[in-house]
Amino acid sequence: MRSPTTTRLLEAFHIVRNQTESLAAPLSPEDQTAQSMPDTSPTKWHRAHTTWFFETFVLDRFVPSYRPFDPDFNYLFNSYYDAIGDRHPRAQRGMVTRPTATEVGDYRRVVDIAVAELIESIESEDEEAQLAEVIQLGLHHEQQHQELLLMDIKHLLSLNPTEPAYAAEPKIESRDPGPLEWVEFAATTSAIGLAPDEGFAFDNEHPRHDQLIRPFALADRLITAGEWLDFMADDGYHRPDLWLSDGWQTRGAQEWEAPLYWKTSSSGWELHTLTGTRPVDPNEPVCHVSFYEADAYARWANARLATEFEWEHAAQVTDSSPASREVHLHPGVTSSNSSTVELKQMFGECWQWTESAYRPYPGYTAPPGAIGEYNGKFMINTMVLRGSSAFTPDGHARVSYRNFFHPGTRWHLSGVRLAKDLNEQ
Amino acid sequence: MRSPTTTRLLEAFHIVRNQTESLAAPLSPEDQTAQSMPDTSPTKWHRAHTTWFFETFVLDRFVPSYRPFDPDFNYLFNSYYDAIGDRHPRAQRGMVTRPTATEVGDYRRVVDIAVAELIESIESEDEEAQLAEVIQLGLHHEQQHQELLLMDIKHLLSLNPTEPAYAAEPKIESRDPGPLEWVEFAATTSAIGLAPDEGFAFDNEHPRHDQLIRPFALADRLITAGEWLDFMADDGYHRPDLWLSDGWQTRGAQEWEAPLYWKTSSSGWELHTLTGTRPVDPNEPVCHVSFYEADAYARWANARLATEFEWEHAAQVTDSSPASREVHLHPGVTSSNSSTVELKQMFGECWQWTESAYRPYPGYTAPPGAIGEYNGKFMINTMVLRGSSAFTPDGHARVSYRNFFHPGTRWHLSGVRLAKDLNEQ
Amino acid sequence: MRSPTTTRLLEAFHIVRNQTESLAAPLSPEDQTAQSMPDTSPTKWHRAHTTWFFETFVLDRFVPSYRPFDPDFNYLFNSYYDAIGDRHPRAQRGMVTRPTATEVGDYRRVVDIAVAELIESIESEDEEAQLAEVIQLGLHHEQQHQELLLMDIKHLLSLNPTEPAYAAEPKIESRDPGPLEWVEFAATTSAIGLAPDEGFAFDNEHPRHDQLIRPFALADRLITAGEWLDFMADDGYHRPDLWLSDGWQTRGAQEWEAPLYWKTSSSGWELHTLTGTRPVDPNEPVCHVSFYEADAYARWANARLATEFEWEHAAQVTDSSPASREVHLHPGVTSSNSSTVELKQMFGECWQWTESAYRPYPGYTAPPGAIGEYNGKFMINTMVLRGSSAFTPDGHARVSYRNFFHPGTRWHLSGVRLAKDLNEQ
Amino acid sequence: MRSPTTTRLLEAFHIVRNQTESLAAPLSPEDQTAQSMPDTSPTKWHRAHTTWFFETFVLDRFVPSYRPFDPDFNYLFNSYYDAIGDRHPRAQRGMVTRPTATEVGDYRRVVDIAVAELIESIESEDEEAQLAEVIQLGLHHEQQHQELLLMDIKHLLSLNPTEPAYAAEPKIESRDPGPLEWVEFAATTSAIGLAPDEGFAFDNEHPRHDQLIRPFALADRLITAGEWLDFMADDGYHRPDLWLSDGWQTRGAQEWEAPLYWKTSSSGWELHTLTGTRPVDPNEPVCHVSFYEADAYARWANARLATEFEWEHAAQVTDSSPASREVHLHPGVTSSNSSTVELKQMFGECWQWTESAYRPYPGYTAPPGAIGEYNGKFMINTMVLRGSSAFTPDGHARVSYRNFFHPGTRWHLSGVRLAKDLNEQ
Repeated sequence: MRSPTTTRLLEAFHIVRNQTESLAAPLSPEDQTAQSMPDTSPTKWHRAHTTWFFETFVLDRFVPSYRPFDPDFNYLFNSYYDAIGDRHPRAQRGMVTRPTATEVGDYRRVVDIAVAELIESIESEDEEAQLAEVIQLGLHHEQQHQELLLMDIKHLLSLNPTEPAYAAEPKIESRDPGPLEWVEFAATTSAIGLAPDEGFAFDNEHPRHDQLIRPFALADRLITAGEWLDFMADDGYHRPDLWLSDGWQTRGAQEWEAPLYWKTSSSGWELHTLTGTRPVDPNEPVCHVSFYEADAYARWANARLATEFEWEHAAQVTDSSPASREVHLHPGVTSSNSSTVELKQMFGECWQWTESAYRPYPGYTAPPGAIGEYNGKFMINTMVLRGSSAFTPDGHARVSYRNFFHPGTRWHLSGVRLAKDLNEQ
Repeated sequence: MRSPTTTRLLEAFHIVRNQTESLAAPLSPEDQTAQSMPDTSPTKWHRAHTTWFFETFVLDRFVPSYRPFDPDFNYLFNSYYDAIGDRHPRAQRGMVTRPTATEVGDYRRVVDIAVAELIESIESEDEEAQLAEVIQLGLHHEQQHQELLLMDIKHLLSLNPTEPAYAAEPKIESRDPGPLEWVEFAATTSAIGLAPDEGFAFDNEHPRHDQLIRPFALADRLITAGEWLDFMADDGYHRPDLWLSDGWQTRGAQEWEAPLYWKTSSSGWELHTLTGTRPVDPNEPVCHVSFYEADAYARWANARLATEFEWEHAAQVTDSSPASREVHLHPGVTSSNSSTVELKQMFGECWQWTESAYRPYPGYTAPPGAIGEYNGKFMINTMVLRGSSAFTPDGHARVSYRNFFHPGTRWHLSGVRLAKDLNEQ
Repeated sequence: MRSPTTTRLLEAFHIVRNQTESLAAPLSPEDQTAQSMPDTSPTKWHRAHTTWFFETFVLDRFVPSYRPFDPDFNYLFNSYYDAIGDRHPRAQRGMVTRPTATEVGDYRRVVDIAVAELIESIESEDEEAQLAEVIQLGLHHEQQHQELLLMDIKHLLSLNPTEPAYAAEPKIESRDPGPLEWVEFAATTSAIGLAPDEGFAFDNEHPRHDQLIRPFALADRLITAGEWLDFMADDGYHRPDLWLSDGWQTRGAQEWEAPLYWKTSSSGWELHTLTGTRPVDPNEPVCHVSFYEADAYARWANARLATEFEWEHAAQVTDSSPASREVHLHPGVTSSNSSTVELKQMFGECWQWTESAYRPYPGYTAPPGAIGEYNGKFMINTMVLRGSSAFTPDGHARVSYRNFFHPGTRWHLSGVRLAKDLNEQ
Repeated sequence: MRSPTTTRLLEAFHIVRNQTESLAAPLSPEDQTAQSMPDTSPTKWHRAHTTWFFETFVLDRFVPSYRPFDPDFNYLFNSYYDAIGDRHPRAQRGMVTRPTATEVGDYRRVVDIAVAELIESIESEDEEAQLAEVIQLGLHHEQQHQELLLMDIKHLLSLNPTEPAYAAEPKIESRDPGPLEWVEFAATTSAIGLAPDEGFAFDNEHPRHDQLIRPFALADRLITAGEWLDFMADDGYHRPDLWLSDGWQTRGAQEWEAPLYWKTSSSGWELHTLTGTRPVDPNEPVCHVSFYEADAYARWANARLATEFEWEHAAQVTDSSPASREVHLHPGVTSSNSSTVELKQMFGECWQWTESAYRPYPGYTAPPGAIGEYNGKFMINTMVLRGSSAFTPDGHARVSYRNFFHPGTRWHLSGVRLAKDLNEQ
């Protein structure tokens, strides 16, 4: 008879694995093959790589008799795990037309069956705990790739002049979010990061440690597309005094005049989305801006971005937490119908750039072995984003979650929440 | 009742159009989508572009009621015809995942039916002649793309670490071709290029005109892989005195140590081919060398490449002409069993680099309109190759044919035939 | 009669301005003209740009009748002050052969005389204070450029195959520094940054604010070249597990196998220095390493780099402060002859990479106007270095000083001081 | 007593060597050091490289006791002579600040004295002939570098925003050249290239050989800047049908809208010249256009460029030959005051692009050894220019001279002379 742990693990495993296939379902083999830029990966690759993770870290380790589905796949679908062996150059992923999307589906099924059998066959509690730990990591890893899959396919489809849609989804009704309000926080010392017994967290959310918080205020909502249009109208993309030096250069080299996916048409600014191209809605949160743009906007608005500690502290003290929800294909509009000022859109719409460089927490150590090559090695030249986005799978968001990207990238669902200093009393 | 001309035209149309689909048949949608480098195109694109040609230059012109299959296709599948309108950047062809390979098949069928109906419905002889001319051009254009399709898919599959084969084909039995012999030609004035009434030719083969021929000798066969290994063993890739200056730089930048698709293994040099990877056969003609390499080899061998005029003159006076044959997946070996010295391998194995820059013949004029953007605009920085290759479709080769590539490219089936000066008597 | 303030200001002005000319004196007009890479500037440019600072921010502002020495110079010798107007592209500075080095000398003299006259003529105390503030900033700015001048000329001379020396200087006697010892520091809250009344500091050292310090230990000296050779011998440059991801890529792209300026010779590793090429001394501190290399070394050594707060706190509590000293042409060796463990080489040898990203202190605001474009705009993608180097001019170093560079640059005198966590008691 | 040959040789040697120093005289050490792009070289380098030629090919060979001035110079000032040994990367020539310009002057004097002594000391006629041959080659080589020196310094000064002049020279009076007229030539067979006894020629002008000439007409003068303005006004830079494919790409990538050195001002088009910036004179010949532009212009004008054989034939039969003249700093205007139509501006104003690719003449062989690396290795991807320019030194031009550049370069004094086919009678 299965233990409740086993049952939960099996259920979670099936849910997450099936979710990946559901996200890929609207995509043809052609769609699943192309790689739009070195930062992105083909859908097919995401499906195979997440499977490779279970094959390598679960089956190879816990099932002595397991034979790899295809020995070449270790080379093709390893990503950054240098410790596991050579890997295929990431910019060349779109060249791997074989295995086909169908064969990747076979690979997934074979591995899923073997993992399910393994879960069911485990008898020792000790082994069950070990297995549960690595499967849990594998599922959170796969959820990350689910978000990447949507980001990446959005980018790929944007390069097709015919502007195809990924799928249909009703446009959320537009409502004026009303003026931005400030929520104030007093000086304190705050415990940041997840405590060991609070559930799953990536290594980079540990160890929990104290941070000094100075008095600050946080905007109650995200900056809207309409507010961004004001920034553009005030020449925000052409005033070097608003920009960091590297940002100014990037802006020039990449000829930014608006957020990614915006383009002008005869009737005004339009937006490429996963549901097709449509006019920019001034009420929706601005999305697909780089850290450089977010930072310039904040300077223009006489404000700043929050530190990641301020953000986490604010979420803690206001009991903000992600609601259970389906993945959406676009960030939604918030309403102003609340009678009290509260933090809105903390989760589920746009990731929020912080002013914190992505660096290890005091006392951080990466796990030993290949799994340790997960987060630590990206702790340079990247900035932390907090919250979650419309693309984030259900169950993947949490208050302590640290997302990160280079300050000049824009293909992620990243928006802007302002902060400002309060005078110390 | 159909005229014999109509019947022949219909038959030719079906043969060539079906041949393209046969060549694409072994390829999955994934294989047909990827673009391996800016010089190449996806299979799907070749299939669609050749169809677009008939839609644009035949149906749009001769069938007033014709409605384009999809108006976007004019943008997506136009290639270099700037006169027809904007076109999709060629390096981005791999990003166009939609239309799918299946939809491109539908496109082909719809256009084929419309063209066939048009051919059958023509009544005036004058119109028939006009139609035949443009269809004939379209078919020769499609045959060029059939060769490109094979070149391009060979390159794409070479980037897959699993080294997949395109298809199976029996390896031709290896035979020692024997020592290279010289065929001598006396000084004369020779008429070069096709005369107006000799059948179809591209614009660049006109006008027929005289060229002075000095006494020269032409090698009776192509240089073999075994002879190329001698060049390599004699440090041919590391002696700047053998190379043109631009070639020496290209060699360094691209780190050439052997022809394209050659790689070392524990048991010697191996070769990527459309039928898989196998050892280099010293008897087979060397292939996939750039002009720079061919020129360096010739200098090393105390010889030179022929001018394109010498090559054509030699072909004329020896009555060399292409045999009717199927497309092969690899150039074959020649035998030495002839008792007399004669020119072998002039057609059907490897294109032969000449020492002639690709420039217009005296009096050349491009046809008016978009069709004129066919050949003339590439008459710079390119060198002429003569003959044909294993990939050249049946009926596409002829003595006056001028192929051309930049001197540093290697993904075409290009080999080496030596020439040398003879003393004038 | 001059006030003591005026006298001190005049004296400081002459000392710093003359020091620049002394540093340039060994360099021919040819040496002063070339720019070795976009990161560096010609000597001539440094001499002119520092002069332009006084012309623009002092003479233009305080001397209404002042006429610019040459109106073109505002365009040529403005650096990053976008607010002042267009500026000459920084990568093109080596193309500006006119004005000549001699004319730049004339420019310096004219501006020096005008500034000195201005200082002497000031009567109001208020104006004197304003003037003193901007002149002081100008002098510290010029001292920064003195260090850059030496860094830049070192890089330029390294590109000359004849390996010329900038000047002669006696090699410091080599002594074994003995084993590395650890100096321990207890948990506390520490005030970081300079207080307003503690003397001159750049804007980025403000505001003074509290930081939590966890228990840590700091190495008593810099890592030596000998210790670096151990890292190299243990394959440190070829183990991806030791490197940050961006660092690993940079290492590969730039083919790093050793610190900048090291090269192999038949008798072992040699070093390009301003006094010529000589063997690497295992006792000298390793220098010219990037953050990526310093970080990889620390990981290899089971340690880490200090945060900039730990470094400043350690300097404060141990009363470390820079000694008054001349500029040296190479970092020196330390000795182990102290009977007690103490922090050595904190100043005057090599800048020390910290693990802190260069970001604004809480409450930081850039000064208004063009002078505010000084430090804040570089607070992205850069890491903080603390201490000072052999090239740092006398009087320019201080405990709160924040130097910064991109993590992949190496032409600065940057070395490694290790830190490690202590268990909290 | 000196033989007349010796006397002439000595005189020629002094004239050419002094001419180089005269051309460098207006340039400061700073001007002589910078390299503006990989295609160009510093003045200092030209002065040293031409001296190195005499040291290597004359003194090392004919004076057994000769010791090199500086052994490093063989590495620093060798250019493309790979056979002589490694050489300094050409794009890094601007980094070699030492030796100084003064030291290069010393180098020149020492070598000049040694060569002069050698010439005077030769006793055997045989040795005199050998010596004369290589010195003559060295002098023609140096004259080529004199033209390059002016081209290169013009380019360098153009990058200085202050637009400095190299020297003063009276502007030639502007005169309307009148309408372009055509000079006709009948079909014939023409001997091309210099015969062995006709005086000095580079290897690429040999062997003399026959070329078929078809009936053609040649424009009597160069295209003027005014005519070029018509081409620009007719959208010549924006019509892809006028351009070769590689040219269209280059135009786009380099954003060409006019010839090199042209720029718009409030009062119209201006021109950077060695004598400063001034308005474009519609009567002067257009200059600094690439082959791509020249070819597009010719197509626009319903004409073509001449082949190099047509050009040489036309010069032969019209007895065109270069007049003895000083170097000018800008190409001049021609007049229309001749009552008969004749070929004007064949020499001394702008080199004239031909439609001929630069390839070896039939039977061409490069001289053995390092001197053979002179011309042959550039016979690819380059187009022939005929005539000479304002910068060409006296005595360096001749009817058979073949100049050559890549079709996309523009820093040479290159202009346009049209040709057209005549109907065969």
